[in-house]
Amino acid sequence: MSSADVDSLLGPGWAQCAAASATSDTAFLQALLDAEAALTRAQGPAEAGRAVTEAADVGRYDLPSIARRARAGGNPVIPLVADLTEAVGEEYGPSVHRGATSQDIMDTATMLVAHRALAPLLTDLARTASALARLAAEQRDTALPGRTLTQHAVPTTFGLKAAGWRALVLDARDRVTAVRESLPVQLGGAAGTLAAFAAYGAEDATALVAAYAREAGLAAPELPWHTLRTPLADLAGCLAFTAGALGKIAADVLTLSRTEIGELAEGSGGSSSAMPHKANPVRSTLVAAAARRAPQLAATLYGSLVAEDERPAGAWHAEWEPLRDLLRLMGGAARDAAELTEGLRVDADAMREHLGLTHGLIVSERLSAELAPVLGRARAKTLLTELARRTHTEGRTLTELLLEEPELKGLDVTELTDPSRYTGSAAALTDRALERR
Amino acid sequence: MSSADVDSLLGPGWAQCAAASATSDTAFLQALLDAEAALTRAQGPAEAGRAVTEAADVGRYDLPSIARRARAGGNPVIPLVADLTEAVGEEYGPSVHRGATSQDIMDTATMLVAHRALAPLLTDLARTASALARLAAEQRDTALPGRTLTQHAVPTTFGLKAAGWRALVLDARDRVTAVRESLPVQLGGAAGTLAAFAAYGAEDATALVAAYAREAGLAAPELPWHTLRTPLADLAGCLAFTAGALGKIAADVLTLSRTEIGELAEGSGGSSSAMPHKANPVRSTLVAAAARRAPQLAATLYGSLVAEDERPAGAWHAEWEPLRDLLRLMGGAARDAAELTEGLRVDADAMREHLGLTHGLIVSERLSAELAPVLGRARAKTLLTELARRTHTEGRTLTELLLEEPELKGLDVTELTDPSRYTGSAAALTDRALERR
Amino acid sequence: MSSADVDSLLGPGWAQCAAASATSDTAFLQALLDAEAALTRAQGPAEAGRAVTEAADVGRYDLPSIARRARAGGNPVIPLVADLTEAVGEEYGPSVHRGATSQDIMDTATMLVAHRALAPLLTDLARTASALARLAAEQRDTALPGRTLTQHAVPTTFGLKAAGWRALVLDARDRVTAVRESLPVQLGGAAGTLAAFAAYGAEDATALVAAYAREAGLAAPELPWHTLRTPLADLAGCLAFTAGALGKIAADVLTLSRTEIGELAEGSGGSSSAMPHKANPVRSTLVAAAARRAPQLAATLYGSLVAEDERPAGAWHAEWEPLRDLLRLMGGAARDAAELTEGLRVDADAMREHLGLTHGLIVSERLSAELAPVLGRARAKTLLTELARRTHTEGRTLTELLLEEPELKGLDVTELTDPSRYTGSAAALTDRALERR
Amino acid sequence: MSSADVDSLLGPGWAQCAAASATSDTAFLQALLDAEAALTRAQGPAEAGRAVTEAADVGRYDLPSIARRARAGGNPVIPLVADLTEAVGEEYGPSVHRGATSQDIMDTATMLVAHRALAPLLTDLARTASALARLAAEQRDTALPGRTLTQHAVPTTFGLKAAGWRALVLDARDRVTAVRESLPVQLGGAAGTLAAFAAYGAEDATALVAAYAREAGLAAPELPWHTLRTPLADLAGCLAFTAGALGKIAADVLTLSRTEIGELAEGSGGSSSAMPHKANPVRSTLVAAAARRAPQLAATLYGSLVAEDERPAGAWHAEWEPLRDLLRLMGGAARDAAELTEGLRVDADAMREHLGLTHGLIVSERLSAELAPVLGRARAKTLLTELARRTHTEGRTLTELLLEEPELKGLDVTELTDPSRYTGSAAALTDRALERR
Repeated sequence: MSSADVDSLLGPGWAQCAAASATSDTAFLQALLDAEAALTRAQGPAEAGRAVTEAADVGRYDLPSIARRARAGGNPVIPLVADLTEAVGEEYGPSVHRGATSQDIMDTATMLVAHRALAPLLTDLARTASALARLAAEQRDTALPGRTLTQHAVPTTFGLKAAGWRALVLDARDRVTAVRESLPVQLGGAAGTLAAFAAYGAEDATALVAAYAREAGLAAPELPWHTLRTPLADLAGCLAFTAGALGKIAADVLTLSRTEIGELAEGSGGSSSAMPHKANPVRSTLVAAAARRAPQLAATLYGSLVAEDERPAGAWHAEWEPLRDLLRLMGGAARDAAELTEGLRVDADAMREHLGLTHGLIVSERLSAELAPVLGRARAKTLLTELARRTHTEGRTLTELLLEEPELKGLDVTELTDPSRYTGSAAALTDRALERR
Repeated sequence: MSSADVDSLLGPGWAQCAAASATSDTAFLQALLDAEAALTRAQGPAEAGRAVTEAADVGRYDLPSIARRARAGGNPVIPLVADLTEAVGEEYGPSVHRGATSQDIMDTATMLVAHRALAPLLTDLARTASALARLAAEQRDTALPGRTLTQHAVPTTFGLKAAGWRALVLDARDRVTAVRESLPVQLGGAAGTLAAFAAYGAEDATALVAAYAREAGLAAPELPWHTLRTPLADLAGCLAFTAGALGKIAADVLTLSRTEIGELAEGSGGSSSAMPHKANPVRSTLVAAAARRAPQLAATLYGSLVAEDERPAGAWHAEWEPLRDLLRLMGGAARDAAELTEGLRVDADAMREHLGLTHGLIVSERLSAELAPVLGRARAKTLLTELARRTHTEGRTLTELLLEEPELKGLDVTELTDPSRYTGSAAALTDRALERR
Repeated sequence: MSSADVDSLLGPGWAQCAAASATSDTAFLQALLDAEAALTRAQGPAEAGRAVTEAADVGRYDLPSIARRARAGGNPVIPLVADLTEAVGEEYGPSVHRGATSQDIMDTATMLVAHRALAPLLTDLARTASALARLAAEQRDTALPGRTLTQHAVPTTFGLKAAGWRALVLDARDRVTAVRESLPVQLGGAAGTLAAFAAYGAEDATALVAAYAREAGLAAPELPWHTLRTPLADLAGCLAFTAGALGKIAADVLTLSRTEIGELAEGSGGSSSAMPHKANPVRSTLVAAAARRAPQLAATLYGSLVAEDERPAGAWHAEWEPLRDLLRLMGGAARDAAELTEGLRVDADAMREHLGLTHGLIVSERLSAELAPVLGRARAKTLLTELARRTHTEGRTLTELLLEEPELKGLDVTELTDPSRYTGSAAALTDRALERR
Repeated sequence: MSSADVDSLLGPGWAQCAAASATSDTAFLQALLDAEAALTRAQGPAEAGRAVTEAADVGRYDLPSIARRARAGGNPVIPLVADLTEAVGEEYGPSVHRGATSQDIMDTATMLVAHRALAPLLTDLARTASALARLAAEQRDTALPGRTLTQHAVPTTFGLKAAGWRALVLDARDRVTAVRESLPVQLGGAAGTLAAFAAYGAEDATALVAAYAREAGLAAPELPWHTLRTPLADLAGCLAFTAGALGKIAADVLTLSRTEIGELAEGSGGSSSAMPHKANPVRSTLVAAAARRAPQLAATLYGSLVAEDERPAGAWHAEWEPLRDLLRLMGGAARDAAELTEGLRVDADAMREHLGLTHGLIVSERLSAELAPVLGRARAKTLLTELARRTHTEGRTLTELLLEEPELKGLDVTELTDPSRYTGSAAALTDRALERR
């Protein structure tokens, strides 16, 4: 059996996800066969197209043998063409791969695989966005501490937090969707001039490219792109973005589900045999792991833009595994993000309770703003600094201390120091963000 | 004097380029001041706006002192606000930075700097695209060897090569333009809820964001994006793409200007004191160097998408220098690419001569296609393999040997073996690619 | 003034650190001059050596002009040699740079700069290791929750944690020290054969390399290493390691100083103007930011090992800025780590208190082990699972519930459930780790 | 069948290499079993050790099922322990994994896999070094153009070039060997305190670590290193170095085997079906591709040094696949480098011929040095500049022109302008470098 076929011991993050199947060696071999068949159909004659299409069934090929024989020439198309030609038989065999170069087939197959693997990824991003929309709406007004540089700053709401996560997921969706729709077939022949297709009788080789694109179900490129690798760079960009978008959510869930914080919990945490009390945030952990790897995988793909000549010696070959890694890692991460957000448990009581951890100082910004007109800027500042100190030394809340201040008799101190009343435009921002579809 | 002010001993690739000035410490400090001034103007009152705008002149500030004092709090906005408030004076000082957090100003300034630095970069990409359009048109039919995995494959044209380079430059232009137009102001206050702006009297804080965007000349964001870093990721993506697009051109020029190849030469190569005959391809070299660095710089920015809480402890700070590096490296690379392509010298004779280096075998693909109908597939293959061998052993050209074959009497062998007549759709593809504006 | 001279607005992490001065443009220019002077001294005659050494004073050169003129040839040595030759004067001018290539001087200067910048870095690593040794000894037996995947697992000690941090710092010290001592001069001439030195009269060019190394205070290489970039890779490796070692410490401090946890606090946190209660962990934040950038900078240096020919067109130029970035980022991070660890405040009460957050379940692993022989494995497991459930539903501690169990009458339940008595070999491991010097 | 089992369609660079087998899922599962068995043997009793060792045979386990079930808890150890315990049976089942945490087993297995995969890699590096030693000795005095920034500079020898390649390979060997010998077992229990081992009866838990190391055949660590990831960083560093070392060789071979240069050729190039004349440098291409990926994979591993707490949520999981990728990519690259260097064909005639491509200007550096004492520095420079110009305009060689100069009558111009006599210390350096073992 060949390697890379669905699920790996070292890849729990993408095990069992649809993108893993869609990017397996078997799926890749099928895509190579699909590319060959589409090319023969586009070139004709129709009988040859039918014969190749019929032979283009992955079950008929010895994948490990092809993987082994790929070593000699450095790519799997060379042995595959030999096997496919034989499978097609004497009459239509000569129509297989006619005029094409290995890269035409390999690149087209790569685009087919990406196109197919991005479909379940987009479905899972949509599931995630829906779950987050629901969470944002449900928790629209649930106040919790806003945290900056790890410290409580001022209050925010969980609604706004979830709406922000969703905005990132929608940004990812938009980028992935645009890239997916643009993925082109590759057709150029040996050095990208389409010359062999004409030598084999094509009247209009550029029209052949369009026909090939139609048969393959991909876009038609403006130019052969053997060394103009825009599609790969675009895939790298949108997948690295997706990694970061989901990684941000995972980072927040990991923080907020810490034992000391406990504002969030994964629906079903991973268990530990030795420690029955533990419920590990496994989904977030695996998403976080994927997010750590994606930028460097994307960097390799961006680096392969520097592809010399009409086919580079290395840059092209360096793309194949990193792209597969990105597709299946992000496929798995989107799946895990969907499960994570759909099952996420929010402990609004814990959030509320934590608003009091700074003895009321979480609203000191508001008091700075509101007391200045009453007391004068300088006096307001002196007073607040003094009271902040006393909350620590006396262990009392800022509200209690403020209520004792004669200067502030006219103010509604309880209202002013209620953290849940200092969430600014959080609700309005949440509502607006949820309007985006 | 502060660091990072235009030109560095270690940065010949971006020395003297407009993006270097636009991203210098001085330019960054001015952008920070511009961000503060725009915010005060947006908040009013008008007199305060005027006062802050007047004080927002970089020449009035001690940049090294601010850089030094930035250490304590970890960003330069904290000392800057102190200095700006003092410069504005007692009356309007309280209007400085009102309700804002450091990140509001830092992020907005970063967007201003990017917006400004990308303008000359786009100009230089346009210059490069124009030079390449001219080259592609002029050399539309200049044949040269297509090279794959370093070896001659089949002929192509320099017109198609230049048109391909241009397609990449236009792809870069399109991506940079779209990102540049989307760059937003940042405004959220301490934890992204806009709460302080209301506390300070704003009736509609979300309207304030729009006013701020108008004053700053940037887009208005849907949400505060303190930890939703889409704009940074988009910058990373389009700049890494630009690096690869220009790097591909540089890689080809470096190859084709090798002493043994000499098909291309930079207009004015770098000289060597000890070796008067050398004319180094310095512009290509510096573009190539920039292209080697960009993917990893972009990876750091993509990594910073994973920004926990309402302001991350590290991910945000890790963005500043890599983004500046990318902006000025790409600014310099675009400048060098413009100079390179505008001055590029094409030696069409050398290209033509190299078409003969394989003794005619560069058209063997064509012969395989064209002889099969005449001789039968099997016989054609046997014959070509035999003749290929003889070109090496006898040192004669394929044309000569073919002309001696009695089986081929009826064929126009001279035409069939002329490499310049086997460029397929190169001209048509070039024409089509040049239609893109 | 040239760029990159000590302190940048965007680099609070390395502002004011010794490595920043040691890697400034001024320091680099001085190192270039030192390299030239060492070479002339090594070649002789002695008078020329003295003259060039005297002229090799950075204050006499127009750094911005050199930076500007570096563009033409792509490196700063070309204009520098012109200026130095002029400064040396007619008699000994011809002795300047005799037989050398730009890369000889540039690489030697880079090694000098690295050698100089690593000295304060090592000092700060030593300070950090000392502070951690003291912390580990002082807090040898302070128990706190061990946390895995963000959740309380079993107890550990802060002593062991600090000893582990120190082990990483010592690992970094060892790696940096070994690399620093190995840094070689570069001398090969135009293509690494030392031919020109012989042409200019050197009797034994390889002996000249040794003399040059002695004069420069660096190691003598086995071969000219223009394209054998082991020294750069070794620097990349030890600096990326340092980043990770310090980044681990920062990550732990950031977590443990969260508002909800508060087990650690930086000695002097950064302040916030609007929120007087905030004390941001700024030192950890800046170290964390540096740690996010270093791996990608190192990747660029590792990538430059692929340096074609006798001098590569791009790979060499791509090394300069990333190496400087690494040196100063790590210089700043080591300085910040020293300040951080020297000032770190440990709240042992908070640590102890948190051991109780799981109602005693933090010792469930111990109970599994210890109750099995008493109750039988199966019964022990059933009992513990049941009691774990009841701690949650009844809000009581595991100790209370266990004390009520008649089956366990003979056991010292209080001892068995005391988290501070379940720290295993933590103290022994700490002691052993502290023996390392 | 599980994924990642030897050979992938997308990995021709590592297909069929020993490191691929040594890092397959099957090999990983066996290593996990070996780690469990070693732990039981170390803990005793002896019968349990024998029982677990006997059960630790990969053929008895359902790998795909374990891979699938790894999703729930995020690592494969959890399901494996269940299956192994069952396989061992009731009596000794309780001795399986006693006191250990998943990470103890996973990390130990990872070290075992690395230890095993590095053995064939070192063998192939040794083969490569031998082949290069032979090449360097055979071609010790074969002159060829030294090339800098793609242009001919001065002559060098192929002996020195091969000796330089070998020096890099030996540097890689030394680094890999040192790291391989240091690879430690992991043992710490749930949070790295070894507490559970004592709870289960170990008298001296630190002695248990040493026994475990002996049983596993790995080094004993100073401390549990769950979050002190020095071993991973060291692996990353030596493998990224190996990639660069081999990548440098590949880059040079690719350049020198270009159709126009042809100084080198791979022993057996890859063929092209459509173009019978092509012999692609496939081994170099695949090595080059691996070299492009390794730095970014290493960056991910360096990034995982930042591992918070006693087990990080993501950083650990992000190590597994990149380390495997590095091990098998480098295993394959070392294998290909061995084949490449063992079969490399050197065309000394082509090298000699290319020395004349600059019409003799390749020795202009020598003439600058040697004519100055004869003609005076200024006159020598003027003359050479003039003659250099004339070589181009008149198409004559520098030798011819110099022989006509009356001022130079006494000089042996033929000797002075013979490129093969201007190779400086190349031979001496080659001899010295070959002394290294």
